[in-house]
Amino acid sequence: MSKLKIIGFDADDTLWENGLYFRQAEQEFAVLLRHYIDPDSLHDKLYAVEMKNMPTYGYGAMAYTLSLIETALDVTQSDLDPEIIERILGLGRDILTHPVELLPDVESVLPILQSRYRLIIVTKGDILDQERKLGKSGLLPYFHHIEIVSEKHEDNYKDLLRRLDIEPAEFMMVGNSLKSDVLPVLNIGGQAVHVPAASIWEHEQCEKPPMPYYEIDRLGKLLNVLA
Amino acid sequence: MSKLKIIGFDADDTLWENGLYFRQAEQEFAVLLRHYIDPDSLHDKLYAVEMKNMPTYGYGAMAYTLSLIETALDVTQSDLDPEIIERILGLGRDILTHPVELLPDVESVLPILQSRYRLIIVTKGDILDQERKLGKSGLLPYFHHIEIVSEKHEDNYKDLLRRLDIEPAEFMMVGNSLKSDVLPVLNIGGQAVHVPAASIWEHEQCEKPPMPYYEIDRLGKLLNVLA
Repeated sequence: MSKLKIIGFDADDTLWENGLYFRQAEQEFAVLLRHYIDPDSLHDKLYAVEMKNMPTYGYGAMAYTLSLIETALDVTQSDLDPEIIERILGLGRDILTHPVELLPDVESVLPILQSRYRLIIVTKGDILDQERKLGKSGLLPYFHHIEIVSEKHEDNYKDLLRRLDIEPAEFMMVGNSLKSDVLPVLNIGGQAVHVPAASIWEHEQCEKPPMPYYEIDRLGKLLNVLA
Repeated sequence: MSKLKIIGFDADDTLWENGLYFRQAEQEFAVLLRHYIDPDSLHDKLYAVEMKNMPTYGYGAMAYTLSLIETALDVTQSDLDPEIIERILGLGRDILTHPVELLPDVESVLPILQSRYRLIIVTKGDILDQERKLGKSGLLPYFHHIEIVSEKHEDNYKDLLRRLDIEPAEFMMVGNSLKSDVLPVLNIGGQAVHVPAASIWEHEQCEKPPMPYYEIDRLGKLLNVLA
């Protein structure tokens, strides 16, 4: 690890809870529409709408809220009580204003690593939302800066390393998504550490990469990886 | 100008049309709600909702769409035809998928400047939307990278210059907003060029800065400023 200079951390579901709030919102969404559709069918419809909208809306709670509204219109065949729309706007707002809940070990590991490496956040989604969460988290002092990317594909990482002016071997990415945090980084010659989250959104599911990478069940074990 | 190294360009309404599409959407929004409220009162209500939502939603077409829906619910006292919601979702999607229309001189000026300075885009809003517009614009080859910031305050510019590793005097910002592109940059010791757009959103209005800055009526005159 002597070459390692910069460690990139995914944020949502790596440093703090996130997907949980979306799942809670979806449960409430299913209750709102219970007279029209069962939760499993609603889930499938919502996911299809989200994927259709992904190229236009991208990631984050605002994109999600718009997809919830579109799904509700579809499911109710436009026989939709405006009260439900109001409640959906509230679900989105709840996600955006939720207190930040740090994941285990985050507060103990970052100060140790900060003295040895430059730490950055590499996240996709909504910049205002990510900055607000970082501010609320109290983790700001540990990070040199936040990189917000529209996608975490190989090209985005290549571009990032070029701007950071470092070689792939000098970079390690830590995150909960094999698809976004591990595979593309391995593919460009960087190192990666997978810290699986309690559950993962379908969109982030992928096969295990064939190249070597680290897998740890909690962030504290990152210190062993780097020892 | 011998010290100048990096020129930052605002994107929306500096390099390409943007506000125009929001104003067109608002006109259609007023037509949709014409049986409930007159356009001027609707405008005031929408602006109030946007400002209330700004800390949570930030800038961009998705934030705007959510505020349109909230305003429609408010104006109709929740007696809202779901068809109108569907149309509002369409208005937001139209903004996000609109072809990029470059402003005058952009295509002639950038290649000249690119040979002398490092050019970057400094914009606030939605990263996916900004990257997509840059892609569609054909301007990608002229820019070293895009900086997406949640706000364009002095601290955001200070942070940007720190990451670019340059002094304020080595940076010039070019944009259509005195509040976002000119004043904060002057305040931290940088240079700024104001290129007023055809119209400006209330939120971006501000007094003329008391410090010296350049004002040009079209981007081509940036070459005279830099001569």
